[in-house]
Amino acid sequence: MGQNPGKIICAGLGPGDPDLISVRADRAIRGARQIAYFRKKGRSGQARRIVADLLAADVIEHAMEYPVTVEIPFASPEYNRLLAEFYDDWTARLVDLARAGDVVVLCEGDPLFYGSFMHLHARLQGLVEVDVIPGIPGMTGCWNAVGQPMTWGDDAMTVLMGTLSETDLTRHITAADAVVVMKTGRNLPKIARALQAAGRLSDAWLVERGTMPNQRLTPLAQADLDACPYFATVLVHGHGRRPLADAAE
Amino acid sequence: MGQNPGKIICAGLGPGDPDLISVRADRAIRGARQIAYFRKKGRSGQARRIVADLLAADVIEHAMEYPVTVEIPFASPEYNRLLAEFYDDWTARLVDLARAGDVVVLCEGDPLFYGSFMHLHARLQGLVEVDVIPGIPGMTGCWNAVGQPMTWGDDAMTVLMGTLSETDLTRHITAADAVVVMKTGRNLPKIARALQAAGRLSDAWLVERGTMPNQRLTPLAQADLDACPYFATVLVHGHGRRPLADAAE
Repeated sequence: MGQNPGKIICAGLGPGDPDLISVRADRAIRGARQIAYFRKKGRSGQARRIVADLLAADVIEHAMEYPVTVEIPFASPEYNRLLAEFYDDWTARLVDLARAGDVVVLCEGDPLFYGSFMHLHARLQGLVEVDVIPGIPGMTGCWNAVGQPMTWGDDAMTVLMGTLSETDLTRHITAADAVVVMKTGRNLPKIARALQAAGRLSDAWLVERGTMPNQRLTPLAQADLDACPYFATVLVHGHGRRPLADAAE
Repeated sequence: MGQNPGKIICAGLGPGDPDLISVRADRAIRGARQIAYFRKKGRSGQARRIVADLLAADVIEHAMEYPVTVEIPFASPEYNRLLAEFYDDWTARLVDLARAGDVVVLCEGDPLFYGSFMHLHARLQGLVEVDVIPGIPGMTGCWNAVGQPMTWGDDAMTVLMGTLSETDLTRHITAADAVVVMKTGRNLPKIARALQAAGRLSDAWLVERGTMPNQRLTPLAQADLDACPYFATVLVHGHGRRPLADAAE
């Protein structure tokens, strides 16, 4: 104990289909003696569901349950205090758990791309060895679900959060050739207005659960904007910007 | 022959480390009887190198050699004519090869994200069944090589090609929180000037061969801008845009 401490291995799970996990992450998950994963209170957790068929029968599980069960304003001091305490607490617990051997932390998508793991990643530095295994980002699974090339040639692609203001969304969408909008949910009407203002609403897809057996693709202009799950993604494909047009500007 | 034609399976290879190929693509590549891959004339080809240790001993290989060996202007009619002929030719050949069974086409990164495969993908529609297996994009491998979170919170991330004009690069970089620039090579001095104009040069990393054993990370401000390989990537990490700041705008 303490002389050969284990590592924290953060395994990127990709977009949802377990077959799209990397060979390295698949090996780490199958061989894990201890796993940890985020979930909302009272929910089984998406990350845990993705790996359900890969886990050893005697794996020890640590569910890291978010302390907030209802949506309170992101910017409130209370929200930030609760989350900081939560990440501080799990940092200490993971360091402690690693004394008994490696802990595999499950992260949907790619861990370093808008992932919750980064809050632990920053806190764990210097306390324990941390190894991150990249994953296919969720958005990449979404554009593969649509099955059309997302970007060609000199296309500029911008990734946005639906929590941005309508003004900011419109400005970014207008400047880009291809667009990804995440954190949609109740921001969807605002996102649709920004796409309309930028002249791109008719090009937009709403992708729910991309690469999963129950995935659903809907042209955004035909979608029910008031009934959208938080983790749906909006995509606008690029059309292949030609180098000449830019060189001649 | 002809009654049970095979499929064209485009396997995304991810950023370069064979261990970062998805479980599904790894299985397809190991089981392949026929593979095809792009390469420059006289070169072994990066895609072929990534899978070198995975291939069956008796796999049949089809090297799709680009018809242009020197950099001629992208926008010249001659360049476009040669490339269109090349893709037309390989479309016909792949359809023909699939009569003998599945052909696995190797694609670095993710096939639908700035990949050469999309030129075949568009042409193959309706002629043969095409199955695309997503991969970890090259840029995701690059930010994992740096080992810092690429995007946090409400960060807007923009992906750009170094072939864009300096004016366009500067405008996009100024508007974004996190930036990826691909197709660097001899565009690197221009990219560095655009980053400088946008006040982000000191935040930029130059990543060569991310996730591969010979990967190299250099702060761009300290890099030799005249000695850069074409496939190096420039990254500027986001700092975590806070939702409040935008909501209050």
